[in-house]
Amino acid sequence: MGNIINGKEVSDKIRESMSAQIEEFKNKTGVVPRLEVVLVGEDPASQVYVRSKEKACAKLGMESKTHRLPESTKQEQLVDLVRTLNKDKKVHGILVQLPLPKGINATKVLDEISPEKDVDGLHPYNMGKLLKGEDPLFVSCTPQGIIELIKTTGVPIKGAEVVVVGRSNIVGKPVALLLLQQHATVTICHSRTKDLGEVTRRADILIVSVGSPQIVKGDMIKKGAVVIDVGVNRLSDKLVGDVDFESAKEVASFITPVPRGVGPMTIAMLLKNTFLAAQRGVK
Amino acid sequence: MGNIINGKEVSDKIRESMSAQIEEFKNKTGVVPRLEVVLVGEDPASQVYVRSKEKACAKLGMESKTHRLPESTKQEQLVDLVRTLNKDKKVHGILVQLPLPKGINATKVLDEISPEKDVDGLHPYNMGKLLKGEDPLFVSCTPQGIIELIKTTGVPIKGAEVVVVGRSNIVGKPVALLLLQQHATVTICHSRTKDLGEVTRRADILIVSVGSPQIVKGDMIKKGAVVIDVGVNRLSDKLVGDVDFESAKEVASFITPVPRGVGPMTIAMLLKNTFLAAQRGVK
Repeated sequence: MGNIINGKEVSDKIRESMSAQIEEFKNKTGVVPRLEVVLVGEDPASQVYVRSKEKACAKLGMESKTHRLPESTKQEQLVDLVRTLNKDKKVHGILVQLPLPKGINATKVLDEISPEKDVDGLHPYNMGKLLKGEDPLFVSCTPQGIIELIKTTGVPIKGAEVVVVGRSNIVGKPVALLLLQQHATVTICHSRTKDLGEVTRRADILIVSVGSPQIVKGDMIKKGAVVIDVGVNRLSDKLVGDVDFESAKEVASFITPVPRGVGPMTIAMLLKNTFLAAQRGVK
Repeated sequence: MGNIINGKEVSDKIRESMSAQIEEFKNKTGVVPRLEVVLVGEDPASQVYVRSKEKACAKLGMESKTHRLPESTKQEQLVDLVRTLNKDKKVHGILVQLPLPKGINATKVLDEISPEKDVDGLHPYNMGKLLKGEDPLFVSCTPQGIIELIKTTGVPIKGAEVVVVGRSNIVGKPVALLLLQQHATVTICHSRTKDLGEVTRRADILIVSVGSPQIVKGDMIKKGAVVIDVGVNRLSDKLVGDVDFESAKEVASFITPVPRGVGPMTIAMLLKNTFLAAQRGVK
């Protein structure tokens, strides 16, 4: 049976070491790192995510504020708010919680966030720098968290065959680029891939992020692979990943559970990005 | 034996159809599409490329100007020149010929080009839009040309296994993203890939862009694959690609030769991007 990667534990360690650094930073500069979140509408999952972001900031002595706006908010209002936050020197990080209600062009809103405050790493400038391998100001949080988790296994990324299932802007594509930069051979597959199992079975490191409950079974995994499950799906009364944990853990050498796998890392990286923005702000 | 993809012929057809459109555009608007190229130093290959760009513009009735600067040019001078060209309304496209001499930070110079005039598609904003699948203002020329060549074969991209050998910013990574967007399953490999042949043999469509003469031999290619060879290497007195054409053409269903394969398409796409910039400029 494979080792379970405890994302909660890894994330706690990162937060702990950051906590002391933030304390020192505040004492030295008088500046409190500050994240402002824009939340539009009543999406229940988004409500939960935003609350955990608020709590996580508070726990580390960082400030956060959530702008809770009604479903009926107009795109222009959002753009105006983002522009105001861009100008506000007390605000170091801006995060627009996705998804936005229908009728709002998310791209137009995200493009307005100043790349210097884009702690989610989704601005085209930062994505472009990532693609070019030219040190983006911020790398999106989940991909960064995944890299940290892989590192804890000691399995080398360089030269590894990596398969990424899913090609989203927030996980699949950026994590593929980060791993490519670290010299992995990287394959990206998705819903149109003809024989998914044939591709996933090649992977020394397998990353699954498609949002379909348990579609990757143990028999689609190479013996000894590292398996990173990014999915969070509600199945009757419990949360499950995109990987069928029970059958997968028999084959994998290392595997992330859901919950307490990738999820806590995403928030830790968001805190890290916000602190980074604050540090740059005082320079 | 496989069919040879005649890039010269495809490119000629594209230029021909553009020629009439440009004539019409000029008559209607009084505006002449204009490309300005910045060439620093004496690199012989760059000299050749720039001359062919100039000739190609002239042939289509487009204006071009090359700023030929000495090897000793300072980074700040280049940045100033780019900023001047950004402001000049008569200039629609700006291209800084790479490589730049040592001591000049190419990134800093390229980042200065206005995304609206970035006909090479290498500005982080345009690269970021490409990564996000959000219609960049310009897509870099060689990747665009490769897609056009694949289309001429009639071999479907959707669902195909594509292998890209090489991970450069101007070819490997952007072409991988374009093919991913068209629903291919895409693998990127490179010098650190452990068993290159094992990976390339999976490809229904194989794109090679590494700059190593003839490293991909026929026995590394799946029977019936489409092979796109982006390499241009001088071997004794002739030009050869990254693919060993003689052995590869026996296995491939379609294959690009070197020269007269991908090369002419790159210039055609540059002309297309410049014309596009001019069209946007009059709107």
